[in-house]
Amino acid sequence: MTEIIDCFGHIMPQSVYEKLKEIHPTEAIAAHDEPYFYDVDQRLADMDEFGIDKQVLTLASPPSWLGADPEAALPVVRHANEEIRRIADEHPDRFIPVGTLPFLSGEYLDEFERCIDGLDMAGIQIFSNVDGAPLDSDEFEPFYDAVESRGVPLWMHPQLADYGVTGDSTFYAKVFGWLLDTSVALSRLVFSGVMDRHPDLNLIAHHMCAMVPHFSARIETFYEAREFYPHTDWAELSEPVESYFKRFYGDTVLNGSVSALHCGYEFFGAEHILFGSDYPYGPDHGRLWLGDTESIREMDLTEDESEKILGGNLRSLIA
Amino acid sequence: MTEIIDCFGHIMPQSVYEKLKEIHPTEAIAAHDEPYFYDVDQRLADMDEFGIDKQVLTLASPPSWLGADPEAALPVVRHANEEIRRIADEHPDRFIPVGTLPFLSGEYLDEFERCIDGLDMAGIQIFSNVDGAPLDSDEFEPFYDAVESRGVPLWMHPQLADYGVTGDSTFYAKVFGWLLDTSVALSRLVFSGVMDRHPDLNLIAHHMCAMVPHFSARIETFYEAREFYPHTDWAELSEPVESYFKRFYGDTVLNGSVSALHCGYEFFGAEHILFGSDYPYGPDHGRLWLGDTESIREMDLTEDESEKILGGNLRSLIA
Repeated sequence: MTEIIDCFGHIMPQSVYEKLKEIHPTEAIAAHDEPYFYDVDQRLADMDEFGIDKQVLTLASPPSWLGADPEAALPVVRHANEEIRRIADEHPDRFIPVGTLPFLSGEYLDEFERCIDGLDMAGIQIFSNVDGAPLDSDEFEPFYDAVESRGVPLWMHPQLADYGVTGDSTFYAKVFGWLLDTSVALSRLVFSGVMDRHPDLNLIAHHMCAMVPHFSARIETFYEAREFYPHTDWAELSEPVESYFKRFYGDTVLNGSVSALHCGYEFFGAEHILFGSDYPYGPDHGRLWLGDTESIREMDLTEDESEKILGGNLRSLIA
Repeated sequence: MTEIIDCFGHIMPQSVYEKLKEIHPTEAIAAHDEPYFYDVDQRLADMDEFGIDKQVLTLASPPSWLGADPEAALPVVRHANEEIRRIADEHPDRFIPVGTLPFLSGEYLDEFERCIDGLDMAGIQIFSNVDGAPLDSDEFEPFYDAVESRGVPLWMHPQLADYGVTGDSTFYAKVFGWLLDTSVALSRLVFSGVMDRHPDLNLIAHHMCAMVPHFSARIETFYEAREFYPHTDWAELSEPVESYFKRFYGDTVLNGSVSALHCGYEFFGAEHILFGSDYPYGPDHGRLWLGDTESIREMDLTEDESEKILGGNLRSLIA
């Protein structure tokens, strides 16, 4: 019997929310003061109903960290990581705890080590930009060294920023801007040479790596034509561009679209796709997508491929 | 024998470039002062080599209009439309002239009428935003009325704007930002009710309508959950959301990716896909994608479906 693992669930422990409000009292995080963000019993009941054996717990609410002061945020981050560890300890067969680091240098490097070595977490959640700074900034190189040396995967969540989309609606920024930011972040990691310098870096990105599988040919074309674009400062890569992008892992958070899943499969193959629900976000407080293993079954894969996507790949990544 | 029509070629007549420089002397348009942007004999030879019978001519260089003064731009736009008409007249069996309107109100409405009634052009190129203003602004409603009453299609080209992507590279804004702006523009036309109010509006968008086919389930989910998002002011649509998006037409400018073409086909069906080359942009001065009818042939469609994509659909649209 296949063990089904949801690779990208979100949680916001109530005490974390209270502390977060103090350092970042914006409207953007208010939605997370709802029981379905922290009610563990309800979560377990939902998982049971949809046959989910285990769930990765990452901290909810990526907007929280934008504009936060790193020093003021540090104790909140530390508390959040401890809380997620505690919840996982209370249900060791059901939850896989992942730490969160909204900043990737300074004392946050110590917190990384504490998450992995002290709290024995399975990996680390980062965001697609660090308060506006791209993930290929030189100052983050020690972080990638540390991640690589510990052999743990990164979970990358998009982060709302001001995308300057036409008009002022936050709606469009969220629907499309998150996909943009993920795509830019992954491309920067490739084209700056981060992925080249860190061959053992494993990274799981939301929404099947956003625009990467569908527009891979476009991305490659621009890289090949980079000499025509001023202001680009791109690494001369030692391998074909596509091979770096294929090293990323994509989750299945595509809102039930089997054709989009197929597109991801054509690009990544079954070995680099992980079932994820985005719980408790989405319709019916995340319950709809918790049941979205159905879309994977509709993909008409071999039993072995399905097993990898539903849990096997994640087990290998965190082994 | 199928008549093959390239639905989205670009041209920059030399005299237009000279006038454009005067009103918008930026680095962004300098690249267009190259023979392959205006050399008609070379263009015809390239079309012959790759078996392209006809090509739609739209004016190149969408960045040109950002920040331009509408009044100063008007005579340049008028000249550009006349020049494209003239080139088409010199080769009536090879080129299909399309007018361009970077602004959609005031005297530009008169220019629209002149393009269609006076210059007998096949339709109009617009951009995904009007100098930053979204396409669903109320002031553009008379334009959509006029377009609908004339029964001509619109060609929508993305337009570079400041997307605020992390870092300062124009590269990312172009690779991904254009896709974002197209996706936002199409969604705004649907969700504002423009497509509902104008059931006969036909619109062809570059890059197979960008993120729409791949992320259609995501787009729908957000619309269904719109009550949770403040600052959205969306029309109550009379038909299912998807049906409006399926009314758009996508071109095949996907850089040779057959899997991305398949995704477009699954969403739009063969009736709403048009072969386009993006000539003379792209590798080898556009010659590579001029030969990209090959990707369509690799899609394994019926003869009838291929014929529609390669030319039939466009003939119907401009009949």
